[in-house]
Amino acid sequence: MKRFPLLLLLLLPSLFAFSENGYDLWLRYKKVANNSLLQAYRQQLNSILASGNSPTMDIVRKELQTGLNGLLATTVAQRTTPQPGTLIAGTPQNEPLLRNAAITGQLKKAGNEGFIITTTTINNIPTTVIAANTDIGVLYGTFHLLRLLQTEQPITKLNIVSAPRIRLRMLNHWDNLDRTVERGYAGFSIWNWHTLPDYIDPRYIDYARANASIGINATVLTNVNANATVLTKPYLEKVKALADVFRPYGIRVFLTARFSAPMETGGLKTADPLDPAVQQWWQQKVKEIYQYIPDFGGFLVKANSEGQPGPQDYHRTHADGANMLADAVAPFKGIVIWRAFVYSHTNPLDRHTQAYDEFTPLDGEFRKNVMLQVKNGPIDFMPREPFHPLFGAMPKTPLMMEFQVTQEYLGQATNLVYLAPLFKEVLESNTGNDYTVAQVIDGTARHDSLTGIAGVANIGNDINWCGHPFAQANWYALGRLAWDHELSSASIANEWLRMTFTNNQHFVDTAAAMMLQSRDIYVQFTNPLGLHHIMGTGHHYGPAPWVNDQRRPEWNPVYYHKADSIGVGFDRTTTGSNALAQYQPKARQQWEDLQTCPDAYLLWFHHVPWNYKMRSGRSLWNELCYQYYTGAARTAALQQTWNKLQAYVDQQRFHEVAMLLGIEHKEAIWWRNACLLYFQTFSRQPIPARYEQPSTSLEYYKSLRFPFAPGI
Amino acid sequence: MKRFPLLLLLLLPSLFAFSENGYDLWLRYKKVANNSLLQAYRQQLNSILASGNSPTMDIVRKELQTGLNGLLATTVAQRTTPQPGTLIAGTPQNEPLLRNAAITGQLKKAGNEGFIITTTTINNIPTTVIAANTDIGVLYGTFHLLRLLQTEQPITKLNIVSAPRIRLRMLNHWDNLDRTVERGYAGFSIWNWHTLPDYIDPRYIDYARANASIGINATVLTNVNANATVLTKPYLEKVKALADVFRPYGIRVFLTARFSAPMETGGLKTADPLDPAVQQWWQQKVKEIYQYIPDFGGFLVKANSEGQPGPQDYHRTHADGANMLADAVAPFKGIVIWRAFVYSHTNPLDRHTQAYDEFTPLDGEFRKNVMLQVKNGPIDFMPREPFHPLFGAMPKTPLMMEFQVTQEYLGQATNLVYLAPLFKEVLESNTGNDYTVAQVIDGTARHDSLTGIAGVANIGNDINWCGHPFAQANWYALGRLAWDHELSSASIANEWLRMTFTNNQHFVDTAAAMMLQSRDIYVQFTNPLGLHHIMGTGHHYGPAPWVNDQRRPEWNPVYYHKADSIGVGFDRTTTGSNALAQYQPKARQQWEDLQTCPDAYLLWFHHVPWNYKMRSGRSLWNELCYQYYTGAARTAALQQTWNKLQAYVDQQRFHEVAMLLGIEHKEAIWWRNACLLYFQTFSRQPIPARYEQPSTSLEYYKSLRFPFAPGI
Repeated sequence: MKRFPLLLLLLLPSLFAFSENGYDLWLRYKKVANNSLLQAYRQQLNSILASGNSPTMDIVRKELQTGLNGLLATTVAQRTTPQPGTLIAGTPQNEPLLRNAAITGQLKKAGNEGFIITTTTINNIPTTVIAANTDIGVLYGTFHLLRLLQTEQPITKLNIVSAPRIRLRMLNHWDNLDRTVERGYAGFSIWNWHTLPDYIDPRYIDYARANASIGINATVLTNVNANATVLTKPYLEKVKALADVFRPYGIRVFLTARFSAPMETGGLKTADPLDPAVQQWWQQKVKEIYQYIPDFGGFLVKANSEGQPGPQDYHRTHADGANMLADAVAPFKGIVIWRAFVYSHTNPLDRHTQAYDEFTPLDGEFRKNVMLQVKNGPIDFMPREPFHPLFGAMPKTPLMMEFQVTQEYLGQATNLVYLAPLFKEVLESNTGNDYTVAQVIDGTARHDSLTGIAGVANIGNDINWCGHPFAQANWYALGRLAWDHELSSASIANEWLRMTFTNNQHFVDTAAAMMLQSRDIYVQFTNPLGLHHIMGTGHHYGPAPWVNDQRRPEWNPVYYHKADSIGVGFDRTTTGSNALAQYQPKARQQWEDLQTCPDAYLLWFHHVPWNYKMRSGRSLWNELCYQYYTGAARTAALQQTWNKLQAYVDQQRFHEVAMLLGIEHKEAIWWRNACLLYFQTFSRQPIPARYEQPSTSLEYYKSLRFPFAPGI
Repeated sequence: MKRFPLLLLLLLPSLFAFSENGYDLWLRYKKVANNSLLQAYRQQLNSILASGNSPTMDIVRKELQTGLNGLLATTVAQRTTPQPGTLIAGTPQNEPLLRNAAITGQLKKAGNEGFIITTTTINNIPTTVIAANTDIGVLYGTFHLLRLLQTEQPITKLNIVSAPRIRLRMLNHWDNLDRTVERGYAGFSIWNWHTLPDYIDPRYIDYARANASIGINATVLTNVNANATVLTKPYLEKVKALADVFRPYGIRVFLTARFSAPMETGGLKTADPLDPAVQQWWQQKVKEIYQYIPDFGGFLVKANSEGQPGPQDYHRTHADGANMLADAVAPFKGIVIWRAFVYSHTNPLDRHTQAYDEFTPLDGEFRKNVMLQVKNGPIDFMPREPFHPLFGAMPKTPLMMEFQVTQEYLGQATNLVYLAPLFKEVLESNTGNDYTVAQVIDGTARHDSLTGIAGVANIGNDINWCGHPFAQANWYALGRLAWDHELSSASIANEWLRMTFTNNQHFVDTAAAMMLQSRDIYVQFTNPLGLHHIMGTGHHYGPAPWVNDQRRPEWNPVYYHKADSIGVGFDRTTTGSNALAQYQPKARQQWEDLQTCPDAYLLWFHHVPWNYKMRSGRSLWNELCYQYYTGAARTAALQQTWNKLQAYVDQQRFHEVAMLLGIEHKEAIWWRNACLLYFQTFSRQPIPARYEQPSTSLEYYKSLRFPFAPGI
């Protein structure tokens, strides 16, 4: 209310019916603004010929009609015979016009889900063609062509072949059955279980459509901290209703399986995976599920982690647990995705090392239809962390990437943090085995046939889906990178901005620059130099490096920063926890030597004296001050930059982002002051005089409480 | 998914950007469809002259501009001097053109919030005038004029004087600070406390605007089952931000006061209202609140009811508690609204009688700035119940009406139940004192200066605000009736339908008929003949007349229906609880005699033998069967009627309502079968053979569980 109350009151109400509330995501089919392009598009795409009787082809026709009518501000006819300027979309099976050698030859490279888009002549008629081997491939191609128009690309000489590099492109919803969302910051779950199966919220369809537009083909509806109720009959009827909506959009449904479900809903006295009654219960349950959902994807399982039940409760291994479920779904071609995110408070070792210790001995022990889903880093979705050492191990086990799209540790929904650079940083990391993490994930390193990327969704029932208008970009980027991880962060930002806001070049360049530096800024004012896990306890909102009273040692920030009178940082070299030993030599060498370790990971791997001289020439303490102050100052710069973009953006979204950048700046000052005042109690050195000194005390920051922070 | 999956898949996605999602409520300023009216409107309202520098007048200008531009599909100019066809809006204080005797004379009848709308000549120029004594009156007049256009009324000879009959027209939000909403069925709370005060969700503005459009001028933001945290500094800053948004729309903010707040947040050891330290704590707290919110309305208090703390914890009376708070807010012109909804499980008397017993001895004991808020009936928002006996008592205490807009016992958000007939039925009841309940509420019966109607809101963060598209009509009706309780249910339905859907006469007539019978239908298939409180326990979803295991006796349905081998119903005559004695003789006479008691209240007041011969000639048992079967059959008729209206309604809302009517029909069969099968265990008589017999057993219905039903 500081800066915009009057403007808001004057402008927003008048836009009631016409405002851009963000619901349409990147699928705004506004009239093409560039007039010469508009004329060219109209000429080249004056009608649609799309054959094939399937729900998916119905969607293709509808989407082309809606998209072209909107973008070209005209009514594009549907035809059954082509004329010059007809767009032909379909598969050779269903559309005889597409059965020519040039097209079928190209289609050999497109696979089951890919497509080609080509400008060509068919029967001497100049046309544009979207062709694929399957209907869903045609739909993906449809969205691709519409994207070209939305981003004002030339389309006169198209010769595109596109196929996904990764097979499973998945969202994980940490949505509970009561509609709360663990680590959800955009309202509550979009799954209204109470009114399912009889009420199909239009949002379910829009969700499927948005996902299809970026190639996402799988969704886990329920939280990994699972509730067995979802496996009961009334809920399976509800899941079926969603699966029926999603199917024509190419999206398969998965559920989380609570390992103790046979006891909780089946009346058994054990969930021991080697117990025949337990095995039989799961086999029956799986059979029941497939009766409702013939293309059910399978289970995602969090077991023996953070209090969840699992096979170790019966002295069985993770492989025993996963294989039991895998055997149950195998007859139906289902898979089991087992999470590697495990750690135990009874294990005194560095949490960093525990997943590796647990799983590497099991390499080769899993069934063929089991994937191991590994978080990008060894701790937990920190703002910046090194890639997980398991990516350089487990050669006999298909590894699936688990990214976080929701910004649990990354500013939740009040900070502008574009995550593609984080995703890319991990994917491009060399495991030390002469292949990158991306090559493990896409299967090229080890010829895996099961490949996958999952993102923990940032979707809620806020009207704009994601809370922060820019958070939509992270959902978008997850899908685009899962399709093709070689796309650059910049190109994804560019296309998202054009589709979501405007093609104005100045706007796109300026806003893309904001996005591309946003994650670095967030790291800088919260966790610079490799600091990690110093956020507020429970809700993970704001700074709390002082917390040391949590039941489990590894829940305490002090466990991670280890600040003392000498210095700060977690020694993970041979003199410390030696977590570095879990990396391949080529990967760890740079990190283990204090002299070569990049500043970004310094305190991640080393306990460093306060007066240690940094590359910058500053002492560690002064460098810490420099980083926090610079990061906070850059949030003010983001505000100034955005304010200059007002003319290019509709009023509602302009003000929403402006208010959120105001909150980000406030939170940056809070992080900076709270962390420096706290670490100062160890360094016993002043914050350099050239910086504005904190006006509030450490005690004040320690006293803050957020009893109703979201997402817990 | 039974009937509409393909249609949904085909139609809804195409409407992504252009669909009617219900967010705009009744404020859709679509172009006037009647062309001759459109031309006449354009001529008569070709420009706007609205003076006055205030946030409210800024809103008036914006609303007129947006409304007329939309309705007239033109750009209406703003002028500083009138010409023929100029609309002049303002107060005589700010607009000299309005300082003529005809206008100022009429304005004497308009009061502080009323307005006049008149077609007149000013300086010989034919104009339309909206005039009021205050800016907020002008805003109310603005919405009234726009409503005339939205509903296609003639405006050539307007001579309207309108002033609210009731001073406080209020919504009660039962919203918790974690954004759950007690008895909320439209998603979660629209108050995003976490991002307040720095993020002003556009929805807050749209909320204020929607309320202003129907004259609602007060809102209680928090649940009556209160949390003291809202009275702490960080939350008062958030409340202030909302109050700042609402103020120019004429809406004052109230909060619920948890009686034990001095202990929970103030560190005191008692909350005894006669303790000077407690009094001082509240005085200081109130002072602090008014520093943030100078026009803070006051407190709404639920005390010593259903486990809430209150003055009786210290052996003080409700008056002691209310007066202590009233003294604290009095210097700031605040008021205290004390709820009469109290009952105690340690009181063995009929729950029907307890509020009367508690409060009538305190009549005259309350401070002048205390109102007693009384639910419309003595039990708890039942689908149909007699008016609360307190309305015929307490002559020295201003009584405020508490209606429920959210449909806790009325089908939640899955049933079409139009509540205006329920509201009217209560308001038009004669208390037996020769005045109606309405005359108590509007103060005319006893010359009260404090008057008020509150409605427990049905608003959530669903895109369409209320869950069921038709539930918006209940919010609308509450506001319209609070302004003028003499409006008929039919006229309110008529104008709401025209504004919300279309002016097509056939549609309006047909849909209005659906609305006007909807509450009777709901009563008939759930609680016919005066049955009450036989719904599911806790969530209040669906039937459960068999429940008899709840901790508190009056939480059990069996407490209310008292079915046995002889008959069914609650004897509240002299041979029973004698609750009827609390009504004035003229009111109770009809009810206490079994011969004259209307069927609608038969089992409310009498325990009636199964073979009792009803007016219809049927036995009670057969009549019960007739009512349940007829009610359920009428829900099928509602579906058929709605399906014939498809051509008049946009696809999205048509399908939403169609799916919900499908659910309503399913729920009606469920209620019918479950209740009849249960009562049959007492009557031991067959369901007449002409009815389709239940295909499912009573045991099945008893076995149903809804662990995640909303609104608890």
